[in-house]
Amino acid sequence: MLNLSSTTTDRWLQQVDTGLEEILIDHAHCEHKAAATAMSLMGAYIDNLDLCQEMTRIVDEELEHFHLVVALLNRRNIGFRRLRPGHYGRELRALVRAGEPHRAVDRLLIAGLIEARSCERFSVLARHINDLELVEFYQSLFESEARHHSTYVRLAKCFADDEVVRNRLRELSEAEAEIIGRGNPLPRMHS
Amino acid sequence: MLNLSSTTTDRWLQQVDTGLEEILIDHAHCEHKAAATAMSLMGAYIDNLDLCQEMTRIVDEELEHFHLVVALLNRRNIGFRRLRPGHYGRELRALVRAGEPHRAVDRLLIAGLIEARSCERFSVLARHINDLELVEFYQSLFESEARHHSTYVRLAKCFADDEVVRNRLRELSEAEAEIIGRGNPLPRMHS
Repeated sequence: MLNLSSTTTDRWLQQVDTGLEEILIDHAHCEHKAAATAMSLMGAYIDNLDLCQEMTRIVDEELEHFHLVVALLNRRNIGFRRLRPGHYGRELRALVRAGEPHRAVDRLLIAGLIEARSCERFSVLARHINDLELVEFYQSLFESEARHHSTYVRLAKCFADDEVVRNRLRELSEAEAEIIGRGNPLPRMHS
Repeated sequence: MLNLSSTTTDRWLQQVDTGLEEILIDHAHCEHKAAATAMSLMGAYIDNLDLCQEMTRIVDEELEHFHLVVALLNRRNIGFRRLRPGHYGRELRALVRAGEPHRAVDRLLIAGLIEARSCERFSVLARHINDLELVEFYQSLFESEARHHSTYVRLAKCFADDEVVRNRLRELSEAEAEIIGRGNPLPRMHS
């Protein structure tokens, strides 16, 4: 359902064990970035009303999640601050092909894969940690991120045939698995 | 209350008379741009929780307005499409000074002045046209755009003393009046 080509390994769970605070802070940033991505896609394809309606829903939900994460940080006296970003988003964006409709397909599928990976990591996190508040929180986010993934894949099909989208999704999913598989010493949601 | 240094002249009303459809289409784009501006300011000053909360509210409201304008266009069989932008936004953004906290103050005050001008134009439009649906629609938007103006001016005061903000607001307001006073042959919300 999530179209991922790999599952999270113990390497990331070790980062969770030693760097959970930083991962939680990064999560807040991820939610804002997901909202900003949806807003930017809306601007790029503003004459597609279906896309605009879905992007509006995603913006609303991601900003709501941002504030939920920030409130959770506050309850735990973790200061929300800027973080040096990992390489994940940058390397994925570098895969976007120039020229339409390729660019639209790639931007939508990459946004969808990031949602899928977040989803998978929420699930891994919820199984790994012994912190009931966090477990419930991550379970509560799972469903909406999975839905966002499906929405992005569906919208990509406005710009290319189903089969073309399926093939490109497989290629990008393999690239995503390679990028996240390389890891990153900074503890991040996608390290 | 709106801190504008000029009022809209008959030149714009002549554009309304001959190019209302295009102005309505431009209005939808303006609402999306206002949401995108708030999202971008949130990203730039994400460690300011007050600012993030206000930007989230503005994003939600502007996207709601976007969909209201698009629905109005659909009811009137006006095809929503891309438009060549006027020079207003670009010329205002060129006034933003480099380096913090100047950049924050300028970006917030300019966002606030654009809201103020939209507000003034909504009011002028509602008085000028004989179209009850549009009159009621523009009256309904007036209050929230005026509130956004006040919010932006208040937030600028997080980054500089009240008097510094007041003086810069006066300077930018005079520049805004000059920019919009030069007009633009394309019929736009801010032509």
